[in-house]
Amino acid sequence: MNPEYDFGSGCTNPDTFPIEKLAAAAAAGIREVGVDFSRYPGDLGHLGMREILARRESEREGVHVDPDHIALTNGSMQGVTLTAEAFLVDGEENVIVTEELTYSGTIGAYRRLGVRMAGVRVDEDGMCIDDLEKTLQDLHAADTPPRFIYTLPTYQNPTGSVMPRSRRLQLLEVAHRFGVPIVEDNCYADVHFEGDKEPALYALDDTDHPHIYLCSLSKILGPGVRLGYVYARQPMLQKVLDRRYDGGNSLLAASVLASFFGDRLWDHVEEMNGPLKQKRDAVFAGLEQNVKDICTWSHPVGGLFIWLHLPDDIDHSRLRQLADAARVRYAAGSAFHIDGLDLPNLRLAFGYPPLDAIHEGIPILADCIRQACGASDRGERTAAG
Amino acid sequence: MNPEYDFGSGCTNPDTFPIEKLAAAAAAGIREVGVDFSRYPGDLGHLGMREILARRESEREGVHVDPDHIALTNGSMQGVTLTAEAFLVDGEENVIVTEELTYSGTIGAYRRLGVRMAGVRVDEDGMCIDDLEKTLQDLHAADTPPRFIYTLPTYQNPTGSVMPRSRRLQLLEVAHRFGVPIVEDNCYADVHFEGDKEPALYALDDTDHPHIYLCSLSKILGPGVRLGYVYARQPMLQKVLDRRYDGGNSLLAASVLASFFGDRLWDHVEEMNGPLKQKRDAVFAGLEQNVKDICTWSHPVGGLFIWLHLPDDIDHSRLRQLADAARVRYAAGSAFHIDGLDLPNLRLAFGYPPLDAIHEGIPILADCIRQACGASDRGERTAAG
Repeated sequence: MNPEYDFGSGCTNPDTFPIEKLAAAAAAGIREVGVDFSRYPGDLGHLGMREILARRESEREGVHVDPDHIALTNGSMQGVTLTAEAFLVDGEENVIVTEELTYSGTIGAYRRLGVRMAGVRVDEDGMCIDDLEKTLQDLHAADTPPRFIYTLPTYQNPTGSVMPRSRRLQLLEVAHRFGVPIVEDNCYADVHFEGDKEPALYALDDTDHPHIYLCSLSKILGPGVRLGYVYARQPMLQKVLDRRYDGGNSLLAASVLASFFGDRLWDHVEEMNGPLKQKRDAVFAGLEQNVKDICTWSHPVGGLFIWLHLPDDIDHSRLRQLADAARVRYAAGSAFHIDGLDLPNLRLAFGYPPLDAIHEGIPILADCIRQACGASDRGERTAAG
Repeated sequence: MNPEYDFGSGCTNPDTFPIEKLAAAAAAGIREVGVDFSRYPGDLGHLGMREILARRESEREGVHVDPDHIALTNGSMQGVTLTAEAFLVDGEENVIVTEELTYSGTIGAYRRLGVRMAGVRVDEDGMCIDDLEKTLQDLHAADTPPRFIYTLPTYQNPTGSVMPRSRRLQLLEVAHRFGVPIVEDNCYADVHFEGDKEPALYALDDTDHPHIYLCSLSKILGPGVRLGYVYARQPMLQKVLDRRYDGGNSLLAASVLASFFGDRLWDHVEEMNGPLKQKRDAVFAGLEQNVKDICTWSHPVGGLFIWLHLPDDIDHSRLRQLADAARVRYAAGSAFHIDGLDLPNLRLAFGYPPLDAIHEGIPILADCIRQACGASDRGERTAAG
């Protein structure tokens, strides 16, 4: 069964996917690579694409980024995995420090790689630094120093938080003091709706501290293109690539994308963000009208997700059942907790469903929520009142 | 320095890479995927491409292959790695049985995954079954049964051998008897120059024996497109995909390729193989004219490589030095031995260099070989005689 109201996964806005522009750009990109298709792309991948991505980073962050410090990957997820594999030590307990709530894909990969995740509390400003410090102290005291800190400081998944600059500087200071490498996942970068952008962690750090930065085109274009990248200076970049055995990233995908983006990346981003903001606002309005009395939710200025706090007495399996029957899809909060805790939360992804489906679907979801918790009576009274 | 005479790596023939046809096919492929670029490709990947590959297998092997038993990968190398990861057991000694001489990429990946390779002797018909049987007996006796047998039965890399049907049946019988899964790497499939094709191992086995088959478009099109695939029935396919965290293979690459191939895969293969055979024959002729007195070599009916047996007193580092100076590139035999043994062999890849470079380059390489071994005087006499 396809859901009618799909708030489930972090897919992008199909309404604005530039099919015709991509189709029009493809032939030129392919011709530009030409006979080089007969060779392996190598660990870094298509140079033209790396130049576009280096410009993206340089222009957003105001620091120089060298295209030769960028390696193209199969989505940022390949970067997540390669980085973990690079730092794991066989036969030892491998600990990675993460936000207690983080991307379910990362949790799944780390788990299957046998990693123990040490979770740091998060609030509306991201990772709490006092808890980070305590976590690192405890791990050092237990003689299991973490391999690295994995963090989503910007448009955090699932909470949508953006870490303020001051806290970023604190995070860097703590990481320096404990000598822990930083893996910064910025895959929602540039999916930004209002206000100033916060700088990436790497751009705030002019030391030699080991820093690996993961980013992607999945969120500003579409996950189907599978083009992510790792940015790191040497020797870190080589350390990550040492576990790469795949011959490199497709020149075919990269050549078409490089030809499409050319020097219009920021125009493209603007074309994508406007309609996406409308969708976010439609979810906000729907929640405001339908569950204000029983729920609270995040107000992300970027990214693709709203983190909804349900009544504490929510019956999760009942909610899932009701939502399935009503063909509403969402992601359960537990999927984003490193230990799978049954949180009274949902994550609503607003990129994929059409505006109409948002207008219709949020009230239906609201209804399901009311029926799945003790607020059912209260809710009906409120709705009637 | 770019080599002038590049017999080094398994790249394809740039002369026949269908740049314009690929460019012409791209737009239609992209339009066909359309808004689905906004979603993840999933573990299996682009259906149209899988259907083409299932037809490729079905038509070559004469058995039904279900597109839903095929998963697209980033070259066949991702399949090699995923398969190994699927079968490795943490904290145990992991042994994989391979041909003693095998693909250097596989050796590198297995090594870095901590695998112990148990090598089976090879002759001009591929893996020797008596030695396979003995290896399996020894491993069972030592209580370290192998995770699987990794084999390249067709156009073996580096030796170019093709295992005859009778030996394939023996291999299957032994694998069944010892209960060892088979991983069949057929990435050179369809790069075929003359005579009948031998059937794939999976097509000879109508039992439920665990069998994982790896193949690719890298050799019939170009490694730059990075499109490989794993074919396996359930539950094996799922076991392999359980270690996949990358969100799936690029819909962009697959859509362009599916549009390009359509139903003309065999026409394309024919267009590629003719000129490639000419290149192989040019290497044969060059060797015949220049090193017949001191070397022997394989006579592969398919694939991209000739395995050259040098005089036993060859000085490898001197040869490398001379070849570098003469801008001739080759792959040293040791790269293909599971223990890196210094074999008196070279692998010559004939797909990439232009015909002219082959005509010029082989005599130059021959000269380097003569100078790097005791045959130097003999050689000069022969050349003058």
